[in-house]
Amino acid sequence: MATTKKVKNKKPVILVINDDGVTAPGIRALVDAVKDLGKVVVVAPDKPQSGMGHAITVGQPLRLRPVHSFNGIEAWDCNGTPVDCVKLAVDKVLHGKPDICLSGINHGANHSINVIYSGTMSAALEASIESIPSIGFSLLDYSIDADFSGATLYVQRLVKQILKKKYDHHLCLNVNIPAVPGNLIKGIRVCRQAYAKYEEEFDERTDPHGKKYYWLSGKFLNFDKGKDTDVWALEHHYISVVPVQFDLTKHVLKTKLEKDLNFK
Amino acid sequence: MATTKKVKNKKPVILVINDDGVTAPGIRALVDAVKDLGKVVVVAPDKPQSGMGHAITVGQPLRLRPVHSFNGIEAWDCNGTPVDCVKLAVDKVLHGKPDICLSGINHGANHSINVIYSGTMSAALEASIESIPSIGFSLLDYSIDADFSGATLYVQRLVKQILKKKYDHHLCLNVNIPAVPGNLIKGIRVCRQAYAKYEEEFDERTDPHGKKYYWLSGKFLNFDKGKDTDVWALEHHYISVVPVQFDLTKHVLKTKLEKDLNFK
Repeated sequence: MATTKKVKNKKPVILVINDDGVTAPGIRALVDAVKDLGKVVVVAPDKPQSGMGHAITVGQPLRLRPVHSFNGIEAWDCNGTPVDCVKLAVDKVLHGKPDICLSGINHGANHSINVIYSGTMSAALEASIESIPSIGFSLLDYSIDADFSGATLYVQRLVKQILKKKYDHHLCLNVNIPAVPGNLIKGIRVCRQAYAKYEEEFDERTDPHGKKYYWLSGKFLNFDKGKDTDVWALEHHYISVVPVQFDLTKHVLKTKLEKDLNFK
Repeated sequence: MATTKKVKNKKPVILVINDDGVTAPGIRALVDAVKDLGKVVVVAPDKPQSGMGHAITVGQPLRLRPVHSFNGIEAWDCNGTPVDCVKLAVDKVLHGKPDICLSGINHGANHSINVIYSGTMSAALEASIESIPSIGFSLLDYSIDADFSGATLYVQRLVKQILKKKYDHHLCLNVNIPAVPGNLIKGIRVCRQAYAKYEEEFDERTDPHGKKYYWLSGKFLNFDKGKDTDVWALEHHYISVVPVQFDLTKHVLKTKLEKDLNFK
């Protein structure tokens, strides 16, 4: 029953998660950006978990191992998914809720439809379900050598602001950062998720035994030219901030369906 | 580029997916319920994929194998997630979009917050993202021996109705069916997703080498007493139908955040 209470600490408790794995440079950049804002605890996957969405581990046991590479900051790796990391962190590491959960900084974009597939954003959303305000950060550069220096200042200011203001405990923000030097970032725009999707084109190959196999691959298609979208903001060198929710109900359809489906 | 076009066929093309795996009785019950409504094609995971959420497989190749246990109906199993199955089915099995995608029947509830973790519903939502109307079906009985007979008639009528009416191509329905005999089902209610969550209580054990490991386990908590929710409907022996969307933007928060985050 540990998860019902908040962790007691003089400084805000900041849980840091990611989906690229505990050794990724992005999580190190995030920890460096916020380490002076509170007591930071890291719980991150022991291997890359990109594209894991909101997967949880039900058929295998989970393990935690201490990690000693964050300059004295408490850190653990976990053999599960990003969402597992949030759940285990709250129940078995922190023994309560942190003041905020930060996820990332992801190596690569999580704007528009990516929010659905993203382990980074699913970890943030899981925290939000558990009444922990959360922010997922992603840089639009998939490279392991991505330059996070332009992002750092904005990450710090956003976290400071969210910690200061009293938002609903379910607050969850999807923050994407353009891959440009910090001085070219024009500022922050609060956006809606653009309507976009991937057009699959599986790469079909044949193994040495003559059997076919397929690599998932696809083209990103943005159907949404709205200036209030995250894709527009990022193309114009703004940081996009999309407030995200876990109520998936499409309320506008309810009345029509009630009429159509009223058979016993 | 196969995914842009619809499959041409005289009868409606019905793609059937699940997350319990191709051998689960639930997918067989679904196929039996709809096989007279169109040309049915099955593409399902080769092993249980419960709780996989919207995970996709990025680091491993995917394979398809023909399955010959559906009485002459074309069927394939896939080594990927439920979402992978939808993507592969469209690009490499159907070479185009089906008229509808049906997922399930899941062995176990996918109402309220379960929609987020559910492989069944993520497959349906993936179809919806790809402009294929979809329905995920779940029976409130986790048992492998669950009795799907009460569900079958309603499954058939719902699919018939959705195929007949011209809805938006992004239509996605989360249908949950109470685990009671068919004559006790009171009818269908169109609902919103109840606000509920799981309270984690990991089961902590020690392996023979003295190291701790944890089994995910938790208690379902419903905080939402609304009579318009799926949980209420199911508790009162109605079939719940929740229209589901993939736009996660929490629009109501945008204005407040725009004021708070307007620093450059």
